[in-house]
Amino acid sequence: MHDTINRLTSAFERFPGIGPRQARRFVFHLLSTPPRDRANLSELIGSLEKDVQQCPSCYRFDTFAGNVCRYCSDQSRDDTLLMIIEKDQDIVAIERANYYHGRYFVLGGVLTLSGKGIIRQRELLQTIKNRLEKGLKEIILALSATSEGEYTADRLREILAPYRSSVRITILGRGLATGSELEYADAKTLSGAFANRKES
Amino acid sequence: MHDTINRLTSAFERFPGIGPRQARRFVFHLLSTPPRDRANLSELIGSLEKDVQQCPSCYRFDTFAGNVCRYCSDQSRDDTLLMIIEKDQDIVAIERANYYHGRYFVLGGVLTLSGKGIIRQRELLQTIKNRLEKGLKEIILALSATSEGEYTADRLREILAPYRSSVRITILGRGLATGSELEYADAKTLSGAFANRKES
Amino acid sequence: MHDTINRLTSAFERFPGIGPRQARRFVFHLLSTPPRDRANLSELIGSLEKDVQQCPSCYRFDTFAGNVCRYCSDQSRDDTLLMIIEKDQDIVAIERANYYHGRYFVLGGVLTLSGKGIIRQRELLQTIKNRLEKGLKEIILALSATSEGEYTADRLREILAPYRSSVRITILGRGLATGSELEYADAKTLSGAFANRKES
Amino acid sequence: MHDTINRLTSAFERFPGIGPRQARRFVFHLLSTPPRDRANLSELIGSLEKDVQQCPSCYRFDTFAGNVCRYCSDQSRDDTLLMIIEKDQDIVAIERANYYHGRYFVLGGVLTLSGKGIIRQRELLQTIKNRLEKGLKEIILALSATSEGEYTADRLREILAPYRSSVRITILGRGLATGSELEYADAKTLSGAFANRKES
Repeated sequence: MHDTINRLTSAFERFPGIGPRQARRFVFHLLSTPPRDRANLSELIGSLEKDVQQCPSCYRFDTFAGNVCRYCSDQSRDDTLLMIIEKDQDIVAIERANYYHGRYFVLGGVLTLSGKGIIRQRELLQTIKNRLEKGLKEIILALSATSEGEYTADRLREILAPYRSSVRITILGRGLATGSELEYADAKTLSGAFANRKES
Repeated sequence: MHDTINRLTSAFERFPGIGPRQARRFVFHLLSTPPRDRANLSELIGSLEKDVQQCPSCYRFDTFAGNVCRYCSDQSRDDTLLMIIEKDQDIVAIERANYYHGRYFVLGGVLTLSGKGIIRQRELLQTIKNRLEKGLKEIILALSATSEGEYTADRLREILAPYRSSVRITILGRGLATGSELEYADAKTLSGAFANRKES
Repeated sequence: MHDTINRLTSAFERFPGIGPRQARRFVFHLLSTPPRDRANLSELIGSLEKDVQQCPSCYRFDTFAGNVCRYCSDQSRDDTLLMIIEKDQDIVAIERANYYHGRYFVLGGVLTLSGKGIIRQRELLQTIKNRLEKGLKEIILALSATSEGEYTADRLREILAPYRSSVRITILGRGLATGSELEYADAKTLSGAFANRKES
Repeated sequence: MHDTINRLTSAFERFPGIGPRQARRFVFHLLSTPPRDRANLSELIGSLEKDVQQCPSCYRFDTFAGNVCRYCSDQSRDDTLLMIIEKDQDIVAIERANYYHGRYFVLGGVLTLSGKGIIRQRELLQTIKNRLEKGLKEIILALSATSEGEYTADRLREILAPYRSSVRITILGRGLATGSELEYADAKTLSGAFANRKES
């Protein structure tokens, strides 16, 4: 019984980016919170399972009633484009930019140089197969511009090689990101920015 | 129904130090977690109420069977000392130092210069009254060396003024904290360090 | 006489990014340095004037014997391109990328929203006039992707409006910079990255 | 000749805490500075040698006319106290605190666990010998509360062991430094703060 505080601290330590101290602070925060809020949090976590499903087409998590998620069932989205991204949160950023209106596939992780990390290879191939029937023309590898992102893109290029005859495979363009200062930019960023320059 | 992800994100945003993005990351972390772990977390949060009590003497949160918490019921601790601290986590740090073996009182917060913040004044006076009967001789104001901590200590001195005839009121000593470099130390730290110098 | 340490500290305080403490540390560093190194530093600073000139064409600082700097006199560089950059250091980054082989013009600063900041407008117009005679076809506004950089680009567009009939005016492309993570990228970066996607 | 910019950049790279990029920025800053300021800086650096001396008693750098520096020649300072500190800047901090009015000795560095680092051992012993004749009673080891500081204090204790019969050897007190928060304080800091608590 004495363990409730410690056990809850351990559970929060497994949250991404949370160390032992902040985990403990979370517990004391909850203890000083109105019982109703605690009950609410407990219930929301408990109901994730029944309320939220993983879409069998794009593999993102969402609440939906039909067979597939909102983005996968939305008839107005462009069936010729499939964007492969690392994780659910990336979709939040891309939808906020309100620029891309094609389909998605969530890898569920990146590969790391140390050999760790997994991606949903089998599921991806199945989704591509289904998407080809609906007119897929281009697969966009939308990974972060990090070493893990590039390593994952390399692996995806191998996996997707057999489809090159029927679809284009593209990657996101390099250039100046908001906040980039020329003085600190590396060669890859600068050469991308130069190659992608546009009328102004 | 669609709201479960958003509602849980909002609940995590209320956690100390957590912004909207990390809150959302927590939700997606939970979604990718085995159902058993999620159920466990939900249950632990739900059982905080019955498993953890607030001690009616020192006002910290703990799991205990008797009337008061372990530290308050521990006969081997020194009844002549009462340390007033801001929050539960401070006790964790002090107990880890294994140097202080008196009693505690948790204020539950600090006062801020902007007038916000509360402390358990009524409860503190009641606890002091009870402690005086058990031989209390010294009250240690153990607040952080921050402006809020000093402001709170000022207010406590006023509140505790009537007890000065029967108890000493002390504050923690200033000096070099682990990692302090002389070059960057301010006058208060250096003069405390000099005044508290010791045989070596 | 007593002032030498203080006066040198003040001089170093005017260096970019250096506060009073680090300025003083520089002085004590120099005091503990071999006399020969100090004399060398003093002499190098003193000889900047005669050894380094400002190029009357691109306005960067360099050591050169002829009328203009190495980049301006290099016959192998592309006369059809003129890149306008903020400061000398930006050229160092761009040359390191080894991608651009046109001409440069250094503005000597950016404009700020608060109205401060200057740029070499008159010199720029003169340089463009000279470059047009040598076949200039495109002016690249290569400012940082910051609010000051964008504000400066806006102003340059106004200044350069009269030349639009004879030259293209372009800006560096937006996209993922090295290290950019999709989750944290803003709309402008992501839409640039998507628009500039390429075969992979 | 072409090297002036690069050679000056290299010279600035040797300044404490300065990397290649900031060193280069210093050079371009100087290039855009009025010639008079550059000449002034060059001259100040050049005159350090004749204007600033190292005191043969405390070994700090200062501008002084007599045999020893201001602090060593000041008759009003307490001859019974000698504070051993790491570097000149530490004296600046201590004098600012306006609490200590004894004498100083500057070690000129700390010892590191990896075996590197030097201290002025021979000079220290000579200064102590001279100070004993003037009534020295206490030597204060005023090192930073870092592992290097503690290691250096350990070594000084060995070196000074023969003097223990005639002088007290003390170290600065541990406690809460300005800004210290209880929750994050380690055992040594907290036990020092508790041991050094005072009437309030």
